[in-house]
Amino acid sequence: MSEGGDAAPAMSPFLAACRCEPAAHTPVWIMRQAGRYLPEYRKIRSEVDFLTLTKTPDLAVEVTLQPVRRFGMDAAILFSDIMTPVEGMGVPLDFAPGPVIETPIRSVEQVDALRIPDPEEGVPFVLETVRLLGEELPDSAPLIGFAGAPFTLFCYLVQGGGSKTFSEAKAFLFAEPEASRKLLEKLADTMVRYLEAQALAGAKALMIFDSWVGLLGPEQYREFAFPAVRRMIEGLDHLDVPLIYFPNQGSTLLGTVRDCGADVVGIDWRLPLADARKTLGPEIAVQGNLDPTALFAPRDELARQIDRVLADAGPAPGHIFNLGHGIERTTDPDAVAFLVDHVHEVSQRG
Amino acid sequence: MSEGGDAAPAMSPFLAACRCEPAAHTPVWIMRQAGRYLPEYRKIRSEVDFLTLTKTPDLAVEVTLQPVRRFGMDAAILFSDIMTPVEGMGVPLDFAPGPVIETPIRSVEQVDALRIPDPEEGVPFVLETVRLLGEELPDSAPLIGFAGAPFTLFCYLVQGGGSKTFSEAKAFLFAEPEASRKLLEKLADTMVRYLEAQALAGAKALMIFDSWVGLLGPEQYREFAFPAVRRMIEGLDHLDVPLIYFPNQGSTLLGTVRDCGADVVGIDWRLPLADARKTLGPEIAVQGNLDPTALFAPRDELARQIDRVLADAGPAPGHIFNLGHGIERTTDPDAVAFLVDHVHEVSQRG
Repeated sequence: MSEGGDAAPAMSPFLAACRCEPAAHTPVWIMRQAGRYLPEYRKIRSEVDFLTLTKTPDLAVEVTLQPVRRFGMDAAILFSDIMTPVEGMGVPLDFAPGPVIETPIRSVEQVDALRIPDPEEGVPFVLETVRLLGEELPDSAPLIGFAGAPFTLFCYLVQGGGSKTFSEAKAFLFAEPEASRKLLEKLADTMVRYLEAQALAGAKALMIFDSWVGLLGPEQYREFAFPAVRRMIEGLDHLDVPLIYFPNQGSTLLGTVRDCGADVVGIDWRLPLADARKTLGPEIAVQGNLDPTALFAPRDELARQIDRVLADAGPAPGHIFNLGHGIERTTDPDAVAFLVDHVHEVSQRG
Repeated sequence: MSEGGDAAPAMSPFLAACRCEPAAHTPVWIMRQAGRYLPEYRKIRSEVDFLTLTKTPDLAVEVTLQPVRRFGMDAAILFSDIMTPVEGMGVPLDFAPGPVIETPIRSVEQVDALRIPDPEEGVPFVLETVRLLGEELPDSAPLIGFAGAPFTLFCYLVQGGGSKTFSEAKAFLFAEPEASRKLLEKLADTMVRYLEAQALAGAKALMIFDSWVGLLGPEQYREFAFPAVRRMIEGLDHLDVPLIYFPNQGSTLLGTVRDCGADVVGIDWRLPLADARKTLGPEIAVQGNLDPTALFAPRDELARQIDRVLADAGPAPGHIFNLGHGIERTTDPDAVAFLVDHVHEVSQRG
């Protein structure tokens, strides 16, 4: 390493924490930080719909930057939707406002007919957004690219849209285990190409959202969802970017999650980070896990809740502060500013 | 005890299991066993709406009996709704089809204005249904009365209706802890009177549904939901009927749940019963926990899933077989028949 004027810049707190290395302070960002709780986001959305926003690089860049500018977040996350890359597989898709799949996948023939698309052809606007963000973002706020985990995408494709229970999708696992496995593998391979392309376009970390995996018991997780996400992570292993896996509501799955190969595991607010650390071991960083509704508490109570999360994470490196789920639309942006400042202040090191 | 012709009838397998005593076979019943998956239920519902059904004792008795007749269930559960007793507190309530509360509770003044009603005046039709069922049900299928847990009722009253996240209700806990505690206590006291009345009318066991408690992290559970449910269970302790508490999706709360005073704890399908037993100890029976979508599997896979649940529960007494959540509307009744017969067959004892 050289010294003096042209010293390599120190690794950002976010990237250091991803690698379980000491950071100047505990880094913080917030799931759905670019979104409706921000007036500057709502202003843009009053002019264009959600889909247009995700498909227009200049606008997607702008809303990605908004929370970084306003709060000094330690990471930015690509503004997009987990279903965006699925359309290119040959699945016509609508948003109303949740994803609607006209012809749900319910047979092995439909699975066989799905393509594994080239992201540069299928979703050039996403990669263009990532490239532009590489120019715009400060080194202190690296860009997180993301994709849905195979099981979560499976849920939408088989169910045909959003659902509280995704019972059709889960029933398909039980009734058609072979077709299910095939579909999960195809989704894994598609997402590998998609995330690879994001990394090549400049994303500094990659996150895999398994939003619906909490619907599975441990056995079905081990049998279906886990092999697919591990396949995905193995396919991304050659890239030199940290991988974050978020098994939402997956408290009872964590003993298996440990072996998925991710550098960081996101934890929802139901499991204290100390318990998560105990299960995951010292080599895996944790991300989370303030209850998003704590942002509605008076400031002193909010501070107490933040301090509890930091205490649960413990003094060892490898903690990225975040909410345990996406921020609520009715959240006061000033509460978010307080959160970011408070985390930075109390976690300042040396 | 007398012998011979007028010997006291043996305790039913269900009641024996509730008390962690050996039973002739593992008892089984199913959450929402009286419901839309049954053609004989749908026939009645094609003639009357849900609310009328809950308020007409003859009809409520009939649909309660239907699954007992068809499948030989080891317990019956009162056909009613957890919101039924809430109206008498002074909360106008509609179903459309979920509960809709015109004026959500958002202030301590509203809490103070709530009454603790006399069930015989407020919900005489429920108690009449319970009395009639006492005459109609065989000893082999004792009647389970039920109520909502304070926190779950709190969710509806503060949110103003159903919700995926109940974020308004949870935010109220953080923003107004004192008003929240008051409301939870009032709900606990109301439900004590309601369940007491059901027991006096002939219910042989009482179940407390905490359907939304899985939205809380362990700290908020300990601080708000748990004290209220313990207050409720203490208020029912003088009755000689087993109490079942179902903290839905409460895997990470179980260390606290252990001390709630219930005889039986219901477990959703996300936590293996062996793990639940380890946390709850040998004095508390467990109820559950087959994934409801397993009923969509081919018979051999369904049998394997049932056997796994039985194996997880272990050979010790104190297991009531059930699903880990309410049965899905599209379930084939023949799969339920298979389930009940299979549990009875493989768990037969001496």
